[in-house]
This record gives sequence, C-alpha cells and structure tokens, in this order.
Amino acid sequence: MNKPYAVSAKAVVRDSRGRCLVLRRSGASKNNAGFWEFPGGKIDPVEHPDEALVREIREETGLNAQVIRVVGAGESELPDRKVAYLFFEARVDTDAVQLSSEHDAFQWVERSELKNRQLCPQFMPFAREYSVRSD
Amino acid sequence: MNKPYAVSAKAVVRDSRGRCLVLRRSGASKNNAGFWEFPGGKIDPVEHPDEALVREIREETGLNAQVIRVVGAGESELPDRKVAYLFFEARVDTDAVQLSSEHDAFQWVERSELKNRQLCPQFMPFAREYSVRSD
Repeated sequence: MNKPYAVSAKAVVRDSRGRCLVLRRSGASKNNAGFWEFPGGKIDPVEHPDEALVREIREETGLNAQVIRVVGAGESELPDRKVAYLFFEARVDTDAVQLSSEHDAFQWVERSELKNRQLCPQFMPFAREYSVRSD
Repeated sequence: MNKPYAVSAKAVVRDSRGRCLVLRRSGASKNNAGFWEFPGGKIDPVEHPDEALVREIREETGLNAQVIRVVGAGESELPDRKVAYLFFEARVDTDAVQLSSEHDAFQWVERSELKNRQLCPQFMPFAREYSVRSD
C-alpha cells in the first residue's frame, strides 16, 4: 500500500555570525528522543510554508526569524504516512533562544559542523550535503 | 516586502528503461514558453503532494504514475510570490505520452542528459545536481 505524503517545512536558522541552530528533542518525545533537529513542522493546509515556519520557529525558540530561501529536501517514513521535508534557510538578529517543552537543549553550530551532530536520521542526508556546499 | 511562498510538486517521471520525461511549454505559455520542464504543479491545500502530483501527471501526460521518493528542492520568484519546489521521482510502465494544451512536445532523456536540456531556469540547479548523482 502506498502511504500518502505530508509536507513539513524545516529551517536552518542562522544567527548574525552564520551559525546554525539545532534543537535536542526532549526525553518525552515519541520519536527520536535525544536526537538533534531543526525547528519547523507540518505545514497547515491554509498557510504559506514560510508563514508556517516563522510561527513554528517562534513557538519552538522564541526567535523572530526571516525566511530567506529554499536549501534542500528530504523525507522520512512513519507507520501511517511519509513526510516530505522542505528545508529553508532563515535569519535571526539575536541568538537568545527560549525553548518550548518539545526540546531540552539547543546549540549554535558552524555550518560545516552540522554533519557531525547526532541529528534525527531523516535530516542527515540534507545536513551532509548542506555542510559542504559553499553557497 | 516579503513575498509569500507557495509549494509546487514536480516529478521526474522515469520509464522502465530509467529515462526521464521532459515537456516543452507551449508557445502560448505566459512564462518560459519554449522551455522544457517536468510535469507537476501547485499543491492544492487539501491534497497530499503525491496525490496532487499523480493527478497533474495524468492531466499533462496521460500517464499513470507511481510516486517513489523525494529527490530535491528548488525555488523561483514571480512578481507576486515565490514558489518552493519539491521534486519527486515517479515511475511509469508505459511511455505512451498524450500531451495537454499546456505543452507542445515531449522527450524521454537519459538522466545524465537532463542538465543539457533547455529547462526553465528555476529547474536547472536541481537538474545539474540530479544528473550527476548515482542514487
């Protein structure tokens, strides 16, 4: 049986020094507890993906982000569906993060270091590719 | 002013020999007339992207496709909005294409040749990258 896809928008949030924000999924998470990830989530059908992403970033980090561009894609498979990820780059002026209960730690890391973080498996192909690109 | 993004799903449709389908935009097209592109289009908010894509492929080519996986992303900018593209790979069992009025020619090309076709500019970064990948 084919599983239908849902679309999720995720952000590489970069601060004024170019560092990238990763969040650690809290121990209570159903999937991938303890793994690191990017802010963002499922796109509500009535939203534009960038507006959904700005809202998710604010909820998950307290940061006011500006979405800049599309930087990649990915996917994952859950028991009942697949998820297609659209990765955007976003910028923030401050790095004063306030986490929600969804995450229990955050780090600002150099772009080239992203591939060495223990990200959720479905984000690793994108992170490896994005880590070494120069654009 | 920030332009909001819309999401569009596009497909690299591959036949049983692995060749990839490209369609030429008809002369009456408002944008990019005469350029080549992939089937697909804007995701209707209430649809899953793969279901939208199967429908668009059928409308534009008459082919009954199966969506396989996510293979890339891209973007373009229009006067009033931006478009974020999600590229999927899809498979078909027959290569008997029936075009709609939207296109006036089609070609089945080797994957490695995609980057050498005169595709719409917004698809070129993806095509260059996908042409040389081996997965």
